[in-house]
Amino acid sequence: MKIQLALDRMEIAEAIELTRKVEDSIDWIEVGTSLIKEFGIASIKEMKQAFPNKQILADIKTIDNARYEFELCFEAGADVATVMGVSPLVTIDICMEVANRYHKKVMIDLLNTSDEQKRELRKYKDAIFCEHVSKDQQEESGSQNHGTGQGVFSGFQVAAAGGINLDSIEDLAKSLNPAVVIIGSAITKAVNPSEAAAKFKQLILQTEGIKAC
Amino acid sequence: MKIQLALDRMEIAEAIELTRKVEDSIDWIEVGTSLIKEFGIASIKEMKQAFPNKQILADIKTIDNARYEFELCFEAGADVATVMGVSPLVTIDICMEVANRYHKKVMIDLLNTSDEQKRELRKYKDAIFCEHVSKDQQEESGSQNHGTGQGVFSGFQVAAAGGINLDSIEDLAKSLNPAVVIIGSAITKAVNPSEAAAKFKQLILQTEGIKAC
Repeated sequence: MKIQLALDRMEIAEAIELTRKVEDSIDWIEVGTSLIKEFGIASIKEMKQAFPNKQILADIKTIDNARYEFELCFEAGADVATVMGVSPLVTIDICMEVANRYHKKVMIDLLNTSDEQKRELRKYKDAIFCEHVSKDQQEESGSQNHGTGQGVFSGFQVAAAGGINLDSIEDLAKSLNPAVVIIGSAITKAVNPSEAAAKFKQLILQTEGIKAC
Repeated sequence: MKIQLALDRMEIAEAIELTRKVEDSIDWIEVGTSLIKEFGIASIKEMKQAFPNKQILADIKTIDNARYEFELCFEAGADVATVMGVSPLVTIDICMEVANRYHKKVMIDLLNTSDEQKRELRKYKDAIFCEHVSKDQQEESGSQNHGTGQGVFSGFQVAAAGGINLDSIEDLAKSLNPAVVIIGSAITKAVNPSEAAAKFKQLILQTEGIKAC
């Protein structure tokens, strides 16, 4: 299980400084939507330059203009870029095609997708599917439910995002068993981010150790 | 009927230069999603500084993190900002609340919304509803269908976007009767953008003249 550090609502320099403190404990770096919308594609470029050996995920949340946006991301150094599962399928087709051409990956964000949409999305076998409790759902409704299993995405690469903390990660690992856990404020807003990230890593290694037994 | 000039897939300086050529014929200036994602919020700030007397629409396509994104847009000088109709309703609630606090407007982009979602969105009486044929749907499937009437949004402020040109605007005006027509490449890619914009304005004035008779 990989840890993706989500960086949001901060300056690029702050994102770099924060990542330096935790880089030994995390696997992927997410350039959050708010960084891209506030500072543009420069946010992806600067993160890749600062951490050339990490996987960089651009959370661009494409919903149209897929070729233009995905080419921007990959040219800027992103290894993975996101598209909304609620997009027209033609948009997701283009994302898959561009990613394939660049030998990069697509993460499909399942935020607010219907069951029917989820079933249709199963045709994208090379994608990573992200079960996503949005910031607004967490902050306004207190929701943290990522579902109780991989459901229609059993056998696919699955990621989980939204309000994951040290108390919830073990249950999440057992129920959803994601390939990637996306952690934001539980690390970035911790009193000691380095210590928090190390604890997440330790818990994940323990959980995987138990599973391997 | 107002003309909203959509600026996409270009540098900020090019967007300003192009808008200078057509400003007498257009009403609203749309800072396109691609400008925001490529260059950040600076794209909104620079357009408002260059055209302080025009209405600036920030096509930020919010789908989460609504308070942060909408405050960024309005603080940068936007008069209208967009949210996706496929978002969780809690996100759209926040957009409406922030816009209300700033005395600004929300445009709800209906791209890929279901009939059920459209009916739910009718509760946002102060919003502008945008019937949207996406770039990807136009370019990959050749689709240009904006529907044949205002449907569930009869009596609401409606905008139409996607592939509108000099041949289609009269039919669109008659069938959908939008408050705002969003025109991109039919002006920005015209051999003579100033002439193209003036023709759109003339056609709209004629159509409105016929209706007033």
